[in-house]
Parts: sequence; C-alpha cells; structure tokens
Amino acid sequence: MKTRRTKPTWIWYYGDFEIHQHMLMGLQREERGNIVPAFWKLFDCNRLIRFTKKGHLEKDETIAVTMDGVGYVSINGLRQPVREGNRHLVKAGDYVLTVIVGNATGLPSVFVQGHTIISDETWSADSLAGDKSPVGCWNLDDPAVPPSKFSLPCKPVQPVGRMKVEQGELYDFGKETFSKLVIDGGEPGAVLRIYYGESREEALHKEKTVIRDCVTIQEPQHILPARAFRYVYVESEGEPGTLSGLYEYLPLEKRGAFQCPNETLNTIYDVSLYTLELCSRLFFLDGIKRDRWVWSGDAYQSYFLDYYSFFDQDIIKRTMLALRGKDPIPSHINTIVDYSFYWLISVWDYYHHTGDGEFVSQIYPRMKSLMEYCIGRGNKDGLIEGQGDWVFIDWADMEKDGALCAMQMLYCKALESMSQCAALLDFQEDQERYGNLASTVRGKILRLYWNEERGAFVTTCRDLQPSQQIRRHANLFAIIFGFASEEMAQRIKTSVILNEEVPPITTPYFKFYELEALCKMGEYRTVLAQMESYWGGMLEEGATTFWEEYDPTLTGVEQCAMYNQPFDKSFCHAWGASPIYLLGRYFLGVEPTKVGYAEFQVRPQLGGLASMRGTVPLPDGKSVTVQVEGARVQVTTDAEGGTLVLGESRIPIVPGQPLTVEG
Amino acid sequence: MKTRRTKPTWIWYYGDFEIHQHMLMGLQREERGNIVPAFWKLFDCNRLIRFTKKGHLEKDETIAVTMDGVGYVSINGLRQPVREGNRHLVKAGDYVLTVIVGNATGLPSVFVQGHTIISDETWSADSLAGDKSPVGCWNLDDPAVPPSKFSLPCKPVQPVGRMKVEQGELYDFGKETFSKLVIDGGEPGAVLRIYYGESREEALHKEKTVIRDCVTIQEPQHILPARAFRYVYVESEGEPGTLSGLYEYLPLEKRGAFQCPNETLNTIYDVSLYTLELCSRLFFLDGIKRDRWVWSGDAYQSYFLDYYSFFDQDIIKRTMLALRGKDPIPSHINTIVDYSFYWLISVWDYYHHTGDGEFVSQIYPRMKSLMEYCIGRGNKDGLIEGQGDWVFIDWADMEKDGALCAMQMLYCKALESMSQCAALLDFQEDQERYGNLASTVRGKILRLYWNEERGAFVTTCRDLQPSQQIRRHANLFAIIFGFASEEMAQRIKTSVILNEEVPPITTPYFKFYELEALCKMGEYRTVLAQMESYWGGMLEEGATTFWEEYDPTLTGVEQCAMYNQPFDKSFCHAWGASPIYLLGRYFLGVEPTKVGYAEFQVRPQLGGLASMRGTVPLPDGKSVTVQVEGARVQVTTDAEGGTLVLGESRIPIVPGQPLTVEG
Repeated sequence: MKTRRTKPTWIWYYGDFEIHQHMLMGLQREERGNIVPAFWKLFDCNRLIRFTKKGHLEKDETIAVTMDGVGYVSINGLRQPVREGNRHLVKAGDYVLTVIVGNATGLPSVFVQGHTIISDETWSADSLAGDKSPVGCWNLDDPAVPPSKFSLPCKPVQPVGRMKVEQGELYDFGKETFSKLVIDGGEPGAVLRIYYGESREEALHKEKTVIRDCVTIQEPQHILPARAFRYVYVESEGEPGTLSGLYEYLPLEKRGAFQCPNETLNTIYDVSLYTLELCSRLFFLDGIKRDRWVWSGDAYQSYFLDYYSFFDQDIIKRTMLALRGKDPIPSHINTIVDYSFYWLISVWDYYHHTGDGEFVSQIYPRMKSLMEYCIGRGNKDGLIEGQGDWVFIDWADMEKDGALCAMQMLYCKALESMSQCAALLDFQEDQERYGNLASTVRGKILRLYWNEERGAFVTTCRDLQPSQQIRRHANLFAIIFGFASEEMAQRIKTSVILNEEVPPITTPYFKFYELEALCKMGEYRTVLAQMESYWGGMLEEGATTFWEEYDPTLTGVEQCAMYNQPFDKSFCHAWGASPIYLLGRYFLGVEPTKVGYAEFQVRPQLGGLASMRGTVPLPDGKSVTVQVEGARVQVTTDAEGGTLVLGESRIPIVPGQPLTVEG
Repeated sequence: MKTRRTKPTWIWYYGDFEIHQHMLMGLQREERGNIVPAFWKLFDCNRLIRFTKKGHLEKDETIAVTMDGVGYVSINGLRQPVREGNRHLVKAGDYVLTVIVGNATGLPSVFVQGHTIISDETWSADSLAGDKSPVGCWNLDDPAVPPSKFSLPCKPVQPVGRMKVEQGELYDFGKETFSKLVIDGGEPGAVLRIYYGESREEALHKEKTVIRDCVTIQEPQHILPARAFRYVYVESEGEPGTLSGLYEYLPLEKRGAFQCPNETLNTIYDVSLYTLELCSRLFFLDGIKRDRWVWSGDAYQSYFLDYYSFFDQDIIKRTMLALRGKDPIPSHINTIVDYSFYWLISVWDYYHHTGDGEFVSQIYPRMKSLMEYCIGRGNKDGLIEGQGDWVFIDWADMEKDGALCAMQMLYCKALESMSQCAALLDFQEDQERYGNLASTVRGKILRLYWNEERGAFVTTCRDLQPSQQIRRHANLFAIIFGFASEEMAQRIKTSVILNEEVPPITTPYFKFYELEALCKMGEYRTVLAQMESYWGGMLEEGATTFWEEYDPTLTGVEQCAMYNQPFDKSFCHAWGASPIYLLGRYFLGVEPTKVGYAEFQVRPQLGGLASMRGTVPLPDGKSVTVQVEGARVQVTTDAEGGTLVLGESRIPIVPGQPLTVEG
C-alpha cells in the first residue's frame, strides 16, 4: 500500500511534467554544432490548468498558495482577492478549493501549504476542456523551486590525465561521464575550442567530433551544459585555465548486485550498471552522447534492467508518459511500429513487477487510444505492416517489407497486455475485444509463419504468402513470448539459434533477446560464454560503458563508426546493459510469479560458475539475496511469498530467516 | 488577384502565430490585482516544425537562414553543416530545401533570404505528424525581429487634465485610450499606487478599481504595460513625477466615412469608429479594459464593422484562426454554442465580402471539424441545445433551456455556410450533406417555432413542444437571415419589434441585429431615431467610446456597474460600434451583390436626413463615395461592377466617372 504524503508537493496535470520535459529533450541533441531536433511530433504541456480539491474541514484553516504561472484561487466558487503571500482562509465545513494556473512558457503547477489541506495526489485537474485528470507529482517539495526550474543534482569529477597533444591539451576523465565542464582560471579574453570525445580519437579529430563548444573566457569560472565524454580536447588562444567536471545524475540507489569468481563477468555486471546509470535521467535514454532521446524499444529493455538494479518505479512511469505524449496520436511512438507495441506490452510488465494498479488505471485511456491507433493501421488481412511507418525490429540485414512475423508477435503481446489491463480495471468489453483479437493474431502467426520443414518462423508474409527468409528475430520472440511449443522451441534452437548459417545478431539490443531465449531453453553455459566473449570483447577494446553496436571483427578506430560517420556510434547505450537483467533473472533466478512479487521464486543457476552471490530488489524497498557455492544455496529476504526452487523441490522462504539448502 | 511577395518574410505553421498570441492574450486579463485567465482551453503553437520549399534554380544561389528557435537546414535530403551566418549554397537544378525549427517557448519560425529563394507563402510546413500545412505569414519582414518578439507600435498621448484629489493626483486623458503609462522623473524610492479608470469614479474608488499597479521608482523613466483608461489616479509616497501615455495600436487605415447635418449622428459615427479602433489589435477584442479576450459572437459583428471602415482582411483572418484553435475540439468556441455557429457563418460572409477563396481553402478542414463537432452535439431530434454548454444568445431575460429558436437559426445558417464553402472548393459530398441538413433544420424551424396565432417565433422548444414565450431575438434573426416570408416579417414587425410589451433589447450587441432588421424592413427613420436616442444617450452620459451595455433608465455611477461589481462594465466594447455598419450598409446603401464586390449596388436611403456623404471601402484598396442631397445623388468609385439603385431604376456606375442623378 502506498503511504499518503504528509507534506505538500508541487502538482501538475497528470503527465504534463513528463511531456514538457520530453519536449525539451527533443530539442537538445547536438551534432557537430547543429541542434538536431527529434523527427517526430513534439507535444508540450497544457498552458492553463484548473486544480481542484474537495474536502471537509473541522475548523477554519489558512492556506498559502504558490503557483508557477498566473492565475487565482477560488474557494467554494468565489474568486479570492489578492492577499499577501497568496494566503486564504478556508472555512470549516465542506469546501471546494480551485486554483487556476496559466503558464505561457513552462508547466502550470501549484504548491499549497495549509494545516490539513496540502497539494498532493488527492487533487484533480482539468484543462478546461471537459476533461478530468488526476494530478501528477514526484519529489519536488520545495515551494521556491517550481517544476519548470527543475534540474538534476551534480557532483564534481576530476580528470585522471592531462597531456599536451598537437596544438592543444587532452584531458582524460578515466571513464565515460555526463558532466558539465568547468573551466577555472582561464585568461580573460582567451578563446577555447572544446572537443568532447567518447574516444580519444573522437576528441582529437575536431572535424568529425560530434559534440563541441567554443567559449570566450569572461569570468573566473565557466560552467558549460552537461555533455557525455571521457576525453576533452581543448585548443585555445590565450591561457585556457584548467578543466574539471560536474557529473549530473539522477539519484538512484543501487539495489541489485552480482559477484562470482569470474572477474570478467563481475566487471561486465559493474560496467552494465554504470551504463544504465548514465542513461537513466528524467527518462531512460538510448545513449548518453547521442541521441539523448527516449526510444520506446530501448526503454522497454531499460525497464527490465531497472527491475533488477534500482527498482525505481518513478523513472519507468515518467518514461512511459513522455513516450506516449498526447492524443490525437500523430504517428507510432518514435515513428516506429514495433516501438508502439513495446510501449503497450510494458504497461502490463510494469504492473506485473510492481503491483502498481493505480498507474495502470491512470494510463489506461492513453493505452487504449494507442492500441486503437495500431489496430486501425492493420492491413486488409488484419496484420500489421508499415503504412509508411518505420519498421525497425533491429539493425539487421533482413526483409522488412510485408507483415513481419516478429511484428505480429509484438502485436499479439500488445493485445494481450491490453486485455489483461482491461481485466484488472474491470472493463469487460475491452478485455474481450482485445483478448479475442490477440487469439486471432496468435492463430495467424502459427498458421502463416511457421515453416515446419525448416523448423523455424520465416521473416515475413507478403499478401499472406510466407517468405523463405529465416532470421533470428521472430524465432527469439517465439521462445521468449511463448509462441513456440516445447517441440518447436527445440527445433528453433538447432535450426536457428545454434545454426551459424543464420546471420548473427550484431546489436546488444537483440543480444538481450537472444540470450534471454537461450536462458529460457536452459543454455546457461552458452549464455555465460557469449556474455564473456561479446561484452568481454567490448571491455578488451577499452569500453568503460557498453555500446550501441559491437562487431568483434572490427578493430581500433573502426569501432567508433556508425551511421556513415566515423564517430557517431554511441559508446554508452542502455541496451548494452542487459547482463544486469540476465544475471539477476536467470542466474540468481529471481522472478515474480504473482503480481508485484506477492509471490516469487528463486531458481538459481550457476551455469558452470563455481559460485555466485547477488541481490535482486523487490517492491517497497525489500530485496532477496542469493548465495550459491557449488551445491550449497542460501537465500535471504525480508519479503513474504518467496519460494526456492531447486530441481523438483519447492521450499518456502521465511522472511528474515536465511534459508540454506545443501544440495 | 494577390500579388506575390518579392521580399522575404517570417513564416510559420499556418495559424500558429495566431494560436500562440491568442494563448498569451488568454493569460493577461487583470481584475483587482488578480490575473484571471480565460475559462476555456488555451491551445499553443506547435513546438517543432519542418518548413519545406521545392523549386528549380537556373543557377547556384546562396541563401541566409534565420530561425526563431533551434534546428538545421537540409538541402536535397542532406543536413547542412553549421556555416557562418547560416549561409548555404543551393545548386542549380531542382531542389528540396527544408528547415527544421524547434522552439521550446515561442513560435517556431524562419526567415530565408536568397536571390530567388525567399521565405514566403509558397513554402509548406508540417509538424512531423503526417500533416501538411500551408505556412502563415503577415508583414513581419525584419529578420532581426522574429514573430515571438512581435509588438504593436505606440505613439505618445498626453493627459488633458491633472488635479489634486484627496491624497493623490487624478489625470484625465480626455478620452478612453489603451496606453502604456510613462512615469517620468519620479523620486528614486518613491512608491506609486496607480488606479486606472474608464470613469473618474472608477479611478478614485481604489478598492473596486479593476486595473491597478504599484511601482517603486528606480529609473528616471518607467514604462508600464498597456492598459485601457481615460483617468489615472495616483497616490504616492515620495515625489511621483509626471505621467503621460504611449498609445499602443494596430495601424489601420480609416477608409470608411459618414457625415450628415445631424451632428449627433456624426459624433456617433466617429465615436463608433474610435471604439472599433481601440478594440482592434492583433485580434478583434470584446472590450479594451476587460476582458481583452476574443469572443466569437462579438468578433462576428466586428467583421461587419471592419468591412465598412478599415476593410482590413488580415485582422479578420487572424481573429478566426485564434478563435478556432486546434483539433480535437474541446468545447464550443468560448464555450458558447451560438459562438461556434457565428464562427462558421462568418467564413462564408468573409468570402462574400472579400473574394478570398484561398483563406476558405486553408481553413476549410478546421470548419469541417467544428461543424461535425456541433452536429455531433445535436439532441435526439437533430436540434441543438446546450449539452452542459453555455447558451448565450444575449444578456437578456429569456428562456434558455430546450432547443432555442434563435439557436436553430444560427445552426441552419452555419450549415448553409458550410455547404457554400464546400461548393466553392468543389467538395460535392460535403456540399450535399450540409445543404440537406440545412434544409431539414429550416423546415423544423418553420414547423416548430412559428406561432401563427401570435405572429411570432417562440423562444424555445422542449421535447418538440414549443414554449409560449416571445422575445425579440429569434424574430430579429428570422428577418435578417431570411427565415420569415414577407408576410411573416410584417406580422413580426407589429407583434414583436414595434410591440413595447415585448421586453426591449438592452445590449448594443443585439441592438445591432434589431436595427439591421428594421433597416431590412425599410424602417430607416425608426433606426435613426433609435440610434440618436440609444447611442446619443451614451454620448450624453459622457461616453468617449461605446459601451458593453446601456440602460437609459440608469443614471450616473450606476452606469458603471455590471456583473455585480460597481465598475466592471466595459465602457469601450466593440459591439457598441454597429452604427458604422448600419450607416454604411443601409443608409449609404453599399452592398456586395457578387462575391468580393465583383458586383455591388448602391441604394442610398436618407431616412429623413436632409443630406449625407460617406465612403465605403471595397477590396483591393478601392472604395465608393456616396453623396446625397435631397433628391440629388452622386456616386463615385474606382471599382468595376457598381450599380446605383434608385427606386425601380438601376444605373451602372462607371469607374472613375462620378455618376450624378437628380431625382
């Protein structure tokens, strides 16, 4: 159960903080001096909001109202005159308090401090459009700092190296960071040309360096906007002073852990966690140098990483609200068909992990309009293909025309998520509609795409004619999302996953799904081996965070290139952090079996390791710690509902009592 | 025909400048220190726009691009690197030029200066939402002043009187103005409490004064935001200095004129024109002190006043775009059912007066969604009643429940306007749909509301049962909009309009329609008499502009009260300026008989005056001047298509040749 606030907090129209901040992020991507805005519609918050609170007072009470914007206070229908400190008297008895706030450039929001009347989740809001919305809030509790002035905290970081290179100086901060560069003691009038690099080569290239800046020293200290970098190269006319950084971050508690005798794996886990941390800001970003945008498919994976590391629900909710934007829907999320489906699927996943039904209820109307938008774009056979939309699936050489098998699988899962959420909220008509549609799509998937002869799902169908191409993607989804029977899964394993003739996955993004599928099929040793070679390969290349793409056959500066540019690959990309999830979910073996971890199981798998020890966070600040040494398993948790599963045996875990089993 | 620009101008997503500025106006109403935002949804402009221009160049050309916002330039699909002055080379041949502009707080807009490539109406725009829009522009031609920095010009005005009153000083500016108050030479640290009044009493009341300000002198000169006032009362601690004003205005050419031997009528005409001038800013406002909002029913009348005075098409188009806002439609325009219909009706009126079919084509999609919104809110009998909406019609004691007769008349006219616009644009299906609906509604009006016995339309129907109440409103519409046959009109004249038992109209707003109906029935003498007594009555009360409401039975300071507040009546309300229209349209008798004045008639009526002389503006800067002295009529015009109508005779008017007829 959620505890109610006792202190006031800034409140706004539900989702508007996220939509406004997402708009700002859509306008900040830098690329060689250009600002490159997002290429989808950017929504903004409402400009005028009426906040309403109804209640009953035992005795008179004075409230102080702080607004971010212009407007007035109304008590029981009477507009209040201007009073000092915007302090108003609410008389004992039933009351209706409304605050009208308009903000022409920022987020209309309000902070109300009384004895019992405070601005909190119990208010409602509307945009004078016949709508009625809950209010949104977070932890913005200082009346002097309204949400429009929100910023993340910073802490100092120092370079670990500084050396003369060519006509300038190269600073090395030792690892990737996202920091405001601080210039101290530059000579007044000195002009600094600053090149940021995720790699040394990028910082030194100048012409092709992605992020750059030019500063004329006027003050003893300059603080530049936060950017991602490990290296900074500076050329200057005049004495440039010295550089340091202010690391800008979202405060998150690291609640997940993993350790084993294999130091490479330990480093992979730690670097994964740091990669995720850098990409976790107001929202889950794809990469911290570029694009710094919120991409739904990327975010979908970050949610799982979050469940196994920070278990921060707020960032998931913020990310989902930002991605969804407003009605009417102008295009698929991020313009990508599959990304709309991931969004829909993630709502039920979120509920399953957290038990936060309030969020489902708040976001359901936005789910439904997106689902209907997707259904409305089906082809004549009720299958989903791009209608001029971006069909992504993966950066891979595969057929992308027609109705992709992987896409229908996501469509079916999205419909199932809708049906489940509708059931939760007792919307029976919706539950049936989406449930029936899901069954129909599921039937078509098996009938159309499964090639019995080759033991695999084919990539696409054109006018109901299956293609002959076989790729990993749909077959991985078949296993993960349960479209393949046990028997089909075994055939897929041989004919696709372990078949080297099927082109390999080249992105950590789809490695996530490939390794998950392998885990589901019990191939733990293979998974560990692939993790060591693929993620370990990046470490060997000097990675301090994991990458957007990794092709082990490339060497040196070749690794920096992507999108036909020598340095445009992102070296810190959240989808590179999947070991967090794989190790927690399949090796430590922790998994919710009822909504919100009301029941959960621990089914550890060493996968060839001699031992391991780790922690997985649960809702409400609880956690479970698993320690395995050979056949000895110990599980400790403060949560109810746990079961240790070892082979055929299922042993209840008592909260607060370490459970030890010697196998 | 429109002439194309030869110089570049700022361009934006069509309608967005108006929507953005309208939002700003919705947040500026002041009331005794409070800001009172509009009580309907405020839309804002898009935040991210792609501007596109396709063309062909004979030779290479360099363009300079100025944006209001962040973004980049793309030529033939290639994003251009940052270049000095944002100057880019477009090569000879076919080209596609796009400029992406994001603006987090203001209007995304762009100014492009090349040799042949310039930003103008030939560009298109989209908001990355699969939409395609024309661009909007006006006369904002200075690359250094983007649309977000737009402001109206000002000129100095001086008080005509200054006197000590109580503890302060009262300034009299001689007549209503809308000015920025300028404080010169106040003593540093002096605190000025400033009270603005449309009346002396309002300025001096302090507690109930609507607009007020408090300034602490820090600079030799302070310039305050523009406000409406005639009087300013100042109390100060410390030497307050002296006050003057900066009159902020929309540059408009007074192209209409009227003069006759009756000086009261002449003053009524001049004061009407000044009233309209004060209420004409970026948009037609209702009143210049309060609300300074754009109200569709008020604006509808202003359009007619404009056609007979300034003939400024831009302000009409801006006003209509601002009022309409965006889709999806959250409520009726200004939340008032009738105001949606006036908006729809005014599109065809605008086309009829101006011949500007381009505007109709640009705004048609927004018309259609509004019309469908209205149709969708019909009751089970296909009639319009408020569905929780505001049913206004007039400030009058009349039945407002059920399906009002006046409302069905507006509905029918709106459907007819839709059908006509659809026909113009060759949307045959729409033309038929709305035409058929209009016929149906017209039939219902005559069948349900006409009370043959009493010779009048009744006020309302409840569940198809006509009420017994008779008021002027529906009966006036019946005559103006042609729902009454000749015979019915004669009965209405006796049983309603000249029947003193039917409650009189008390607003200049509906006086507009009453006098127009009387004109249509040939009651010119009555109209002049009413004008003299009603508008003349306001002049006798000291009006320097015409009012929101006028009840001749009230005296002195009673006249200032409205809305249960002693000074909340607006003393400068555009709907008070109808004599401009009535004198031009029915006395000078100038009227377009074909679209855009391609043909027009002049049918002067002295209405008992000995003589009159006046001018009515026509499109394209042309005009017609009419001079009547007894039976002698002279008409002069530079436009083709005119006919002088005197009794049964119709005499063609040759442009440039004064036509004189001695009766």
